[in-house]
Amino acid sequence: MPKVVDPRIRRRELAEAVWRVVRRDGLEHASVRNVAREARLSMGSLRHYFASQSELMAFALRLVIDGIEQRIAALPSDGDPRQRAARVLAELLPLDDQRRAENEVWLAFTARAMTDPELRALRDEGYDMLRAGCRGLVAGLIGPGRDPEREAARLHALLDGLAVHAAVRPDVDTPDALRAVIADHLSELRAPRTTDAPTRS
Amino acid sequence: MPKVVDPRIRRRELAEAVWRVVRRDGLEHASVRNVAREARLSMGSLRHYFASQSELMAFALRLVIDGIEQRIAALPSDGDPRQRAARVLAELLPLDDQRRAENEVWLAFTARAMTDPELRALRDEGYDMLRAGCRGLVAGLIGPGRDPEREAARLHALLDGLAVHAAVRPDVDTPDALRAVIADHLSELRAPRTTDAPTRS
Repeated sequence: MPKVVDPRIRRRELAEAVWRVVRRDGLEHASVRNVAREARLSMGSLRHYFASQSELMAFALRLVIDGIEQRIAALPSDGDPRQRAARVLAELLPLDDQRRAENEVWLAFTARAMTDPELRALRDEGYDMLRAGCRGLVAGLIGPGRDPEREAARLHALLDGLAVHAAVRPDVDTPDALRAVIADHLSELRAPRTTDAPTRS
Repeated sequence: MPKVVDPRIRRRELAEAVWRVVRRDGLEHASVRNVAREARLSMGSLRHYFASQSELMAFALRLVIDGIEQRIAALPSDGDPRQRAARVLAELLPLDDQRRAENEVWLAFTARAMTDPELRALRDEGYDMLRAGCRGLVAGLIGPGRDPEREAARLHALLDGLAVHAAVRPDVDTPDALRAVIADHLSELRAPRTTDAPTRS
């Protein structure tokens, strides 16, 4: 008779196995086969949890989102809004090994979602969450005359661009460089908007 | 006896075939097989030009870079530096079908280069070119107290982040929204740097 395992415990074991493979070998090696080997389970058992590579990636992305949410929830909620914004954004940028692995999952997921319709709903959820987060941070910060929605779009684009650059060129776009750019940007958001008419092309 | 074809003409025909496939079907369908069919050539002849999918993608990216460089070279070189910056950046953003296809190639190429070492040199070349371009635009624009290298990194990250968002959510991050964010950012670069100490986390 097969051993009965609490599905929540099994899921957590799998999550840890996925995460070990991603951190050690990179997401491209987090195939259903390799995760099965890492978790010491058969391919058959694993397919009960994720039937495809797409589902495995969605599972990995959920782990990333849960981890980030927990860290942000644990941040001190008092204090200067700019300092809080800098701390929240730091949780989203690849500033250490853990966050680099999370970023790698996010970028690989986004790339794959361009051609895999199964992944789009979750990618869009991630995008909406980040945009809403930026909107919240901007609302507490912006100086007179600034458009909250446009500033949220700008901060969100800056954040995603920095994350890509840190993955592509960690030697140039170092953690310190990322922090400095974010600090500049947040300082600037508090100033009144410069009033000259925008250029159109 | 096989027909002798001028290799430059053949290369241009192939470039056009690659581009037709990318624009019509998306980059994920620009396999060596599909490009061969589009160009009415055998797989064998095509392999003379690109031996692998990686080489085909490198070829497609070269087409993108050449096209962008030609358009930027054709821009009026006189006039206000901010207006020129807005025009240059507009050539790099997915504001119409042509530039959307170019952006798709760039994003797919960047994603693939994460796991395909053959593509890294060209990806890094693209990154360096864009960073140098941002450095040039920033140099002509920035107000007192601003760090040119940090502002170049910020503009470059903003540009790449906007390009990703426009691909992911064209309904939210529309061409007009992109232009407005870029216009705001360029206006801001001309203002003196806000002087309060940066926040560290």
